[in-house]
Amino acid sequence: MKSVRVFAPATVANMGCGFDVMGMTLDGVGDVLCVTVDEGDDLQIENLTDIELPSDIDKNVVTPAIRAMMEAFGESRSVKVVFEKKIAPGSGIGSSAASSAAAVYALNEALGRPFSDERLVEFAMEGEKLISGGTPHADNVGPSILGGVVLLRGYHPLDIVRLPVPDNFCCSVAHPAIMVSTRMAREVLPTEIPLRMAVEQWGNVAGLVAGLALGDVHLVGRAMRDVVVEPHRKQFIPQFDELRRKVTEVGALAFNISGAGPSVFSLSADMETAEKVGEVMRQHFAELGVESDIYVSKVSNQGARVVE
Amino acid sequence: MKSVRVFAPATVANMGCGFDVMGMTLDGVGDVLCVTVDEGDDLQIENLTDIELPSDIDKNVVTPAIRAMMEAFGESRSVKVVFEKKIAPGSGIGSSAASSAAAVYALNEALGRPFSDERLVEFAMEGEKLISGGTPHADNVGPSILGGVVLLRGYHPLDIVRLPVPDNFCCSVAHPAIMVSTRMAREVLPTEIPLRMAVEQWGNVAGLVAGLALGDVHLVGRAMRDVVVEPHRKQFIPQFDELRRKVTEVGALAFNISGAGPSVFSLSADMETAEKVGEVMRQHFAELGVESDIYVSKVSNQGARVVE
Repeated sequence: MKSVRVFAPATVANMGCGFDVMGMTLDGVGDVLCVTVDEGDDLQIENLTDIELPSDIDKNVVTPAIRAMMEAFGESRSVKVVFEKKIAPGSGIGSSAASSAAAVYALNEALGRPFSDERLVEFAMEGEKLISGGTPHADNVGPSILGGVVLLRGYHPLDIVRLPVPDNFCCSVAHPAIMVSTRMAREVLPTEIPLRMAVEQWGNVAGLVAGLALGDVHLVGRAMRDVVVEPHRKQFIPQFDELRRKVTEVGALAFNISGAGPSVFSLSADMETAEKVGEVMRQHFAELGVESDIYVSKVSNQGARVVE
Repeated sequence: MKSVRVFAPATVANMGCGFDVMGMTLDGVGDVLCVTVDEGDDLQIENLTDIELPSDIDKNVVTPAIRAMMEAFGESRSVKVVFEKKIAPGSGIGSSAASSAAAVYALNEALGRPFSDERLVEFAMEGEKLISGGTPHADNVGPSILGGVVLLRGYHPLDIVRLPVPDNFCCSVAHPAIMVSTRMAREVLPTEIPLRMAVEQWGNVAGLVAGLALGDVHLVGRAMRDVVVEPHRKQFIPQFDELRRKVTEVGALAFNISGAGPSVFSLSADMETAEKVGEVMRQHFAELGVESDIYVSKVSNQGARVVE
């Protein structure tokens, strides 16, 4: 019998212009779960958190991730997953991804590390497939496992690139109490876009990756702009443009939708500014009668990891 | 009176996926011209090369570039440009850009360097505007002046990012004797593209920039793929897919259209492979009864520069 307790961090997918191909890692906020492996051939999930999880084991995101991994492992084991801490689902900071990431990371440790981290991303994507209704994405599970900023160069085959982040980037996330399903957020997107718009977007993607690589926070700020998806999704976020104006005024480098929304995030060059930005976000939603959860965190180079 | 002789290198625009936002610098091949500045208020252009240039001074690309610069300079001067070496126009390796780049670089030196290199790019873009019929691009003039790989993050305002290139990249370019006007090459492009295709392209752009920044030649090779523009333009290049197969077989990392074509280029991790690739390209076109000029060069971190 072997037990491993793992923390997997929250993540911000898309990062503005990097729709469906980029995600970054937060710090401090995330899921903690404990995986125990023993002789046998079954899967149990126990939930010690305040967050409600599906009672049907087949509807829990960690189930397809663990099953894919055990199939690749090729030997039977009894696996028990105990959720100890859980990001609220629908928070827009990769809640399901943190669970899948923590589960596969812990299981890999408990099995004696038969798989590479990149392979773990593939297993964890099975969990994302379950909730997205068929299309697997790695822009949350990738950074939750690997840390830093993760690029998904391609999916066929999966080509994951990890970029270290400059150590002063800080992120403020607001999760307003508004219900926007991933399905709704997908449905508002156009199937075709003007070529000129696409060129503008990939110019920004190029600038964003260059800014991260060169450690140029201002370039990152200028480039972290989404001209393709945001115009369609910002309708779900009350007074989105006004909020951008407010956070920019207190020093934020960039302001965008986190994942499919309704969470929004902002990047700052230091923690003090990020704290201010978080407060501006909270006030903005409060004035509109909307409660929000605020997370302020460094952008982290550390992904999933064993904890005591 | 002051004379400055300058070399400005040939360049490869687009670099596959980076359509309209990226260009890279070659070495050895380029334009050489000499600019002489004196008291007065006129512009003369003399051509000592074998290449025919427009006899009407207003149709020479360097004219609008020089006029824009002199206007910004704010004082009258007599400027004489003598072309000593010229890349053949229509070669697909930034022939007009090398002229504009050399002219503004030399003039800036002759005037005592009143302008930054980034500002020189803006002046040189006026030359590109002349030949493109109104749309100024910087994906050839940018690298020809600055060297390395140049990203155009945005045009309003111009946001130029210079990325150093790993020192082992080598480029083979073939310019087949086929006439494809930039206008024709533009006209075949769709005005709208599927969002999924755009996402695939910016995933590759992200990978390409990351590969350059991390010095990962294989990532650069995997990412330097254009799913948006190439399918429409490869019809102008005889047996394009077959040529890709051939150069890949001898070790090329990537194979794409250079600029708007009909030139094609290939990236290799060493000079020996690049020479082999160049020869494969020459043979390919020769077997189809098409003559071609072949350029094999290191990718260079050096842009325009004064020469003796």
